[in-house]
Amino acid sequence: MSVTFEVLATDGAARRGRLTTAHGVVDTPVFMPVGTQATVKALTPDDLETAGARIVLGNTYHLLLRPGHDLVRELGGLHRFMSWPGAILTDSGGFQVWSLAKLRKVTEDGVEFRAPLDGSLRFLSPEGVIEIQRALGSDIAMVLDECLAYPAARETTERSLALTRRWAERCRAAHASGGDGQALFGIVQGGTDEELRLRAAAETVALDFDGYAIGGMAVGEPKPRMYALTELVARALPAERPRYLMGVGKPEDLVESVARGVDMFDCVLPTRNARNGQAFTGEGTVTIKQARWTRDAAPLDAACSCYTCRRFSRAYLRHLFVAEELLAYRLLTLHNVHFYLELMAAMRAAIATGAFEAFRARFYARYAVSSLDVPLDDPQRSEA
Amino acid sequence: MSVTFEVLATDGAARRGRLTTAHGVVDTPVFMPVGTQATVKALTPDDLETAGARIVLGNTYHLLLRPGHDLVRELGGLHRFMSWPGAILTDSGGFQVWSLAKLRKVTEDGVEFRAPLDGSLRFLSPEGVIEIQRALGSDIAMVLDECLAYPAARETTERSLALTRRWAERCRAAHASGGDGQALFGIVQGGTDEELRLRAAAETVALDFDGYAIGGMAVGEPKPRMYALTELVARALPAERPRYLMGVGKPEDLVESVARGVDMFDCVLPTRNARNGQAFTGEGTVTIKQARWTRDAAPLDAACSCYTCRRFSRAYLRHLFVAEELLAYRLLTLHNVHFYLELMAAMRAAIATGAFEAFRARFYARYAVSSLDVPLDDPQRSEA
Repeated sequence: MSVTFEVLATDGAARRGRLTTAHGVVDTPVFMPVGTQATVKALTPDDLETAGARIVLGNTYHLLLRPGHDLVRELGGLHRFMSWPGAILTDSGGFQVWSLAKLRKVTEDGVEFRAPLDGSLRFLSPEGVIEIQRALGSDIAMVLDECLAYPAARETTERSLALTRRWAERCRAAHASGGDGQALFGIVQGGTDEELRLRAAAETVALDFDGYAIGGMAVGEPKPRMYALTELVARALPAERPRYLMGVGKPEDLVESVARGVDMFDCVLPTRNARNGQAFTGEGTVTIKQARWTRDAAPLDAACSCYTCRRFSRAYLRHLFVAEELLAYRLLTLHNVHFYLELMAAMRAAIATGAFEAFRARFYARYAVSSLDVPLDDPQRSEA
Repeated sequence: MSVTFEVLATDGAARRGRLTTAHGVVDTPVFMPVGTQATVKALTPDDLETAGARIVLGNTYHLLLRPGHDLVRELGGLHRFMSWPGAILTDSGGFQVWSLAKLRKVTEDGVEFRAPLDGSLRFLSPEGVIEIQRALGSDIAMVLDECLAYPAARETTERSLALTRRWAERCRAAHASGGDGQALFGIVQGGTDEELRLRAAAETVALDFDGYAIGGMAVGEPKPRMYALTELVARALPAERPRYLMGVGKPEDLVESVARGVDMFDCVLPTRNARNGQAFTGEGTVTIKQARWTRDAAPLDAACSCYTCRRFSRAYLRHLFVAEELLAYRLLTLHNVHFYLELMAAMRAAIATGAFEAFRARFYARYAVSSLDVPLDDPQRSEA
């Protein structure tokens, strides 16, 4: 395969690594901004590069429905279509079918659903999601898995896990026949049951994927439970392969999960919350529409070097947001993505020098963890 | 005053000139993108500079209502508030009161209206609009004038003209007492009556303003009438002062008005039409949502050097627009503003070498004048 991974340094369970793809090198731990419909909402590829993004996530479900993967293939693949020179990971679409589509019917063969846009009946099979992701031409593809609501009974979880394993095998086989250099990651499900999580990890690893995702997290379980399960699963995964915690999370979740050995993340929080007027700063979140910022000449975050913080005051950003100006969404998105990527860069630097625990302490000394943010259990995980 | 103007070259009635302001040099003929609410919608100051903008227009009416001129003054003026290093021209707010506000009442003293945002009763006097524009700190301020609907009876136009003249005198007097280097432009009204237009021009010139605007155009009169009246008024204005045709227009209107001696323009067309999915190209307009562009790998305009045209296909732009992605509005706005500013640059270069007629012929040889664009008689003239 043309995607390789190496661990460059460790600090406790935290890992400093490097993914090498046909579309550039990606230093890990890494955060992947979500580009649902072939665009990270409100940002250009240049904005993303300036913010330090080297890999973005594309949502197969959305691209399949619009503009269609055949069209994307015809126009040279997703990289060329969206003019993004960096790496791309595509999900399998399974999560969005589960959370967004109507009339979902899961069978051994795959999942049938009705497309929201035109009401047409669609079907995703394990082989189909591999074919679609090949058409999109992503650097990293994901297997089709079944997602369960939280909480789920043990019997339900076991039955679902078995189906997910069979689908993973079929994805693995379908992908092997392609040989176009695209990596394929397996997904470890298992709900909140430790034994089932470990069983899922072992079964997934047995199929020998290029990397392993931890799925079905941040779907409503208590935060300490999520951290504990992440730690458990990460330990059960091979050290030489990248570990990807899907759909997570808030800044503190990134810090806690890196501490437990996770290498890759994606989440809509920095982008979606920006459009809702919430900015992330080193001291916590700022709700820009609040009257307290009306006359505030300071930037969002005095320690931030992004274009938004170098050029604009909170008062101006508040004005733009209250006036529903397009520039508000763009400047806040730019800042939030920059904040997330800088947070990851700081963690990488700390791990490389064996100073991760000191970093973690400094982070919490400044950062006010808030329970008022958009809840992590938002099941959407895409920017529709 | 700190704004000076010189004519560098002429070619027929067309003029190549230069405005020098405290915020940089502005080559004329110039197009001013409209930044209604302290932002040219969807663009950053950097985008504007890259596109070649050196002066933008701010709408006093909108800024007065939100965030308020006192707040803008407190935060260092409009340039600093919106982080725009170039020049700014502000209108007086009169046109927007006329077209947007409810319960308008015009008296000798000024105009009373109810603010749409909070229902509060507001009053704009000639002295008030000077004070507000001083608070905003624009490089060029405009007098308060009365705007008439088209068509208007001669008697109505005469009465209105007399009021506009008295208001112009009061603005002139109020402005003279400030002496902070801001330029003040008078406005020539007069409807579609040639005699009244000439009388208005003479009366306005007698008050000795730093520049002269032609107002009340593109409000519904036939296009040939607008061109003829523009030519008539431009000839009646002093050669050594800049001439500004307010609220105009389409690309062909810019070409025709430059040919008749106009130096400055503003219009919402490039920005508003971008958000409605219409792009301007050297061959005419492109309606991006049309199905014919679904698989088109070509840029909007192969001859264009803007970021949008260098990086993205019509197919991708169509996808973004159909998917209602924020990036669609931004990329189309970027292109349209670039197109307008390049058109002005091409006209400046042509005038400088005495080749304006050849340029005009080349323009029409390629450009398909369309009657399907957003009508020019849209009375809004701001980006609300």
